[in-house]
Amino acid sequence: MGAYKAPLKDMQFVLNELLDYSTHYNSFARGQEATAEIVLAMMEEAARFAETVLAPLNAIGDEQGCTLIDQQVKTPDGFKVAYAQFIENGWPALSHEPKWGGQGLPESLSAIVNEMFAEANWAWDMYPGLSHGALSTLIRHGNDEQKATYLPALVSGKWTGTMCLTESHCGSDLGLLKTKAIPHADGHYRIQGSKIFISSGDHDLSENIVHIVLARLPDAPHGTKGISLFIVPKFIPTSSGEIGVRNEVYCGSLEKKMGIHGNATCVMNFEDAIGYLIGEANRGLSYMFTFMNFARMGTALQGLAHSEIAWQKAYDYTQMRQQGRDLNVIEQTDSSPRVLIKHPDVLRMLLTIKAFTEGNRALYYYVLQQADRVLYFKDKQSIEDSHQLMELLTPICKAFMTETGLESANLGMQCFGGHGYISEYGMEQNVRDARISTIYEGTTYIQSLDLLGRKILMTQGNTLRCFTKIIHQFCKKHEQHLVITQWVKQLRILNKNWGNWALEIGIKALTDREEVGAAAYDFMMISGYICLAWVWADMARIASDQLSKGHTDTVFYQQKIDTASFYYDRILPRIEMHQKSMHSGLHTIQLTRS
Amino acid sequence: MGAYKAPLKDMQFVLNELLDYSTHYNSFARGQEATAEIVLAMMEEAARFAETVLAPLNAIGDEQGCTLIDQQVKTPDGFKVAYAQFIENGWPALSHEPKWGGQGLPESLSAIVNEMFAEANWAWDMYPGLSHGALSTLIRHGNDEQKATYLPALVSGKWTGTMCLTESHCGSDLGLLKTKAIPHADGHYRIQGSKIFISSGDHDLSENIVHIVLARLPDAPHGTKGISLFIVPKFIPTSSGEIGVRNEVYCGSLEKKMGIHGNATCVMNFEDAIGYLIGEANRGLSYMFTFMNFARMGTALQGLAHSEIAWQKAYDYTQMRQQGRDLNVIEQTDSSPRVLIKHPDVLRMLLTIKAFTEGNRALYYYVLQQADRVLYFKDKQSIEDSHQLMELLTPICKAFMTETGLESANLGMQCFGGHGYISEYGMEQNVRDARISTIYEGTTYIQSLDLLGRKILMTQGNTLRCFTKIIHQFCKKHEQHLVITQWVKQLRILNKNWGNWALEIGIKALTDREEVGAAAYDFMMISGYICLAWVWADMARIASDQLSKGHTDTVFYQQKIDTASFYYDRILPRIEMHQKSMHSGLHTIQLTRS
Repeated sequence: MGAYKAPLKDMQFVLNELLDYSTHYNSFARGQEATAEIVLAMMEEAARFAETVLAPLNAIGDEQGCTLIDQQVKTPDGFKVAYAQFIENGWPALSHEPKWGGQGLPESLSAIVNEMFAEANWAWDMYPGLSHGALSTLIRHGNDEQKATYLPALVSGKWTGTMCLTESHCGSDLGLLKTKAIPHADGHYRIQGSKIFISSGDHDLSENIVHIVLARLPDAPHGTKGISLFIVPKFIPTSSGEIGVRNEVYCGSLEKKMGIHGNATCVMNFEDAIGYLIGEANRGLSYMFTFMNFARMGTALQGLAHSEIAWQKAYDYTQMRQQGRDLNVIEQTDSSPRVLIKHPDVLRMLLTIKAFTEGNRALYYYVLQQADRVLYFKDKQSIEDSHQLMELLTPICKAFMTETGLESANLGMQCFGGHGYISEYGMEQNVRDARISTIYEGTTYIQSLDLLGRKILMTQGNTLRCFTKIIHQFCKKHEQHLVITQWVKQLRILNKNWGNWALEIGIKALTDREEVGAAAYDFMMISGYICLAWVWADMARIASDQLSKGHTDTVFYQQKIDTASFYYDRILPRIEMHQKSMHSGLHTIQLTRS
Repeated sequence: MGAYKAPLKDMQFVLNELLDYSTHYNSFARGQEATAEIVLAMMEEAARFAETVLAPLNAIGDEQGCTLIDQQVKTPDGFKVAYAQFIENGWPALSHEPKWGGQGLPESLSAIVNEMFAEANWAWDMYPGLSHGALSTLIRHGNDEQKATYLPALVSGKWTGTMCLTESHCGSDLGLLKTKAIPHADGHYRIQGSKIFISSGDHDLSENIVHIVLARLPDAPHGTKGISLFIVPKFIPTSSGEIGVRNEVYCGSLEKKMGIHGNATCVMNFEDAIGYLIGEANRGLSYMFTFMNFARMGTALQGLAHSEIAWQKAYDYTQMRQQGRDLNVIEQTDSSPRVLIKHPDVLRMLLTIKAFTEGNRALYYYVLQQADRVLYFKDKQSIEDSHQLMELLTPICKAFMTETGLESANLGMQCFGGHGYISEYGMEQNVRDARISTIYEGTTYIQSLDLLGRKILMTQGNTLRCFTKIIHQFCKKHEQHLVITQWVKQLRILNKNWGNWALEIGIKALTDREEVGAAAYDFMMISGYICLAWVWADMARIASDQLSKGHTDTVFYQQKIDTASFYYDRILPRIEMHQKSMHSGLHTIQLTRS
């Protein structure tokens, strides 16, 4: 039991019925080729690859982990072959420009097929995942020569990329970083320093690795305003685009960690390594946000991935495993055990997982549409609107999808009882792998501060209003809908409160800005629950309309309504708890110290 | 940093100031010797052992795990030596009767010193922990010959015990078990079958292992009414109390699991092993409850243990690690980073851990007092009252303390950021070790059903009233207290609601008993939060009284008030969420299936 199965039907439901991706792709030049047939064919091909190539390597990757031999990282058995097949299939090139060897399809499509790779084997998927971020940074901020040198090999997947930010004394607080970049006579720089926690920092999947590195010039201003961004390739490219001499950047050691064992988490030592400045000096941090926003959405996907795995495996297991009786017949000695899923509390756990998995997928795909619009639309207002939505929703996706993804992974394991704690079924690996997601690429608190402080309060609520307006319109349009009318009523009130609560914190913050810090986590969770209330109301609306039109797939659509109902009755009350905690203010978080 | 330090001061606060253990011990014969001085001396001695012997083996145990060589389990380096020292110090004998070699001190004292062993090294502590349960079962249900044969060696710790219940097809549902016991001519039985998930099932710490095994006689009735209990020693004792021939019970394999690697989780094969019936045939399950209740309290302790570790390590680390700025000065380029604990959200996480750790300890020690009363009091009414309280509070302790212990372990890890995910600081081990606690010895759901179904509804609420009466009296007594008056007001309402909510579910259950299953989890969590609201109000009362009397340890006592305040403002609102979810009823947990 329990082989990974790509959730194509649920994905298609969101793409076609909820978000009408067909119309979306038809609305910009690059989307023209992404017809419904092409999209489906690609998804099916990706599903096959995820199911047959990546998923079987997931437990092996966990078991073997990576090893460091003579300053070179060896990945688990099968990872290298899978990667070769991956680039042969052209997956890395999918959404890049034809002039760099790309297939010129929309960015969102790349992310959608990537959902399946992520679910099948997250640790493996981080190798190409990091590349994709490095690529985006170079496309946006590299000069022509740099693009010509690096993009073709990165787009094809022949080379991969990394992102080198963290140092041992600075994680969230990049202003403290110390890695030095010394200007050299022939225009390049020499990078000196040590970076930690570098995912995919070294490995044997690709012939070259392009590190994107944050470092300080000798005369750089203090803090975050003195950080520059550099390209530091593992091998210096020759003029013909082949790999040349080995650069002085080495993996010093591998971290021993809780999960994602298949991915190499490296200490990277830069020992006078040759580096090339990206863009202008001292503007590295702002460039890095390109990478970081990408990475945050990538990590949000991790939350979805572990949640989907929890759902698939727990749903299968609980329909098969017999244990315990119906409480109505328990005293009858001849009563027979029933399958776990029939126990109300087991089903409560399963429905929680399902509500998060499918709700988060819908939200994620919605944000991907906004990303397409920002990248490919011509109309300035549309771009600005979508940009605002992404600004708001990216930290919510990162924090909320990983927090609830971790909850799902834990509930999925709980459904297995003692069998969940042993490695056999993969449920404990799923929890261990998921556990990092609320930490890296900015912890839940960092995301929460970004959301409430930078995105909402610093824009006087404008960014939030872009979104609450959309929910408001949804509520207005469907307030009379037969099935969802009660939910729309609740959603309308929550949507209004959302802005008001932000305002209340903003007023408190005039006296002490730390009020924002004290409220941020609860506010972020509330925001996530409201987002999912919106998508669940909409999914239930669509499902009920299909059923009243006589659609024959009654189980599929009725399950959507069941889950929406569960979400509103049993998950949404969490908002009240967060709201009370949030409103209690900064003064309730005090601990006297000597 | 981060060596384990026994929390003697907090333990003493609960023992002396909250629960007046001195008077408690003075109120029964066996307690007479447990004077305040003796108790303190024992706690300090146990602290030393925990800190210097057990804690240093915790990471080693995780790293090495157990190995199976020629059907014999080898424990991690140092475990055996530590155990030898443990029995030399006389710890296993502490609370047992002198006639079996015990020191004749109260059972609670054994549990209190055990808190420190559990915190220092849970995987190690499970070896003597399982013994203690086996011992209690033999003391209560064994015949004179069995007692004479097994108790002296078990009490001294020379031999250890296990509890063999689970089979691959039956965990929570013991009625399904298949292991057979065939009567043999010379009065003993031959046990045939295979048990899984047997903690401490085999090891090299003691010369003999006494398995307590559930099995079925050939003519046994179907289901749980046909289960008998047997003693199956690894080596058959000789008449002189030494070990004789090897019995046919072997560890077939070790489970590969998420955590508690230092403890051997065994598949145990009984291959016509010699077994001795305990008590009467077919009454095994009822005897087993002695063991299970003990094991449930032991597992509750595990929740406390991981919570305490999370607190200690995260409190230390966040006071040292500098990262990020005060939001009020963040734009000043010369602002310097501050320690993590000064960030409101980090402190929110720490206070959550502190509230659970100290609240759960207080609740746990309260239940230990009841256990003493049941064991040692003469007055029937007192025994009955305390028995009722234990009946009610045991499932709450098991489920709530492990659920919140796991939350604490996760929050403690989160405080470390990326450094929490790597093995260096032990925070990820703490999460992995904690994760089993909500599963074994009856999952959270099993405990919740026991609480709401068996303990409350089946007694028409009598058992609950024994406890709500106590809280009611507390509220009445302290309603005018200067510092806690607001909290008492809240507690009084919650306490009243508690019983009413149970009644409401009871009425629903008249139509469909599955309503109990649908409400049980939320009801259990509510119960735990109310229990902690009670102990936190009381601890804050004591602390504020000390401060107004001019006690000079202001930081210690003020922290108690700070934490109580945090608990009431930021944790207690969770009850509303659970209450809404619970009241939504069985029909909100539905998933249409084909």
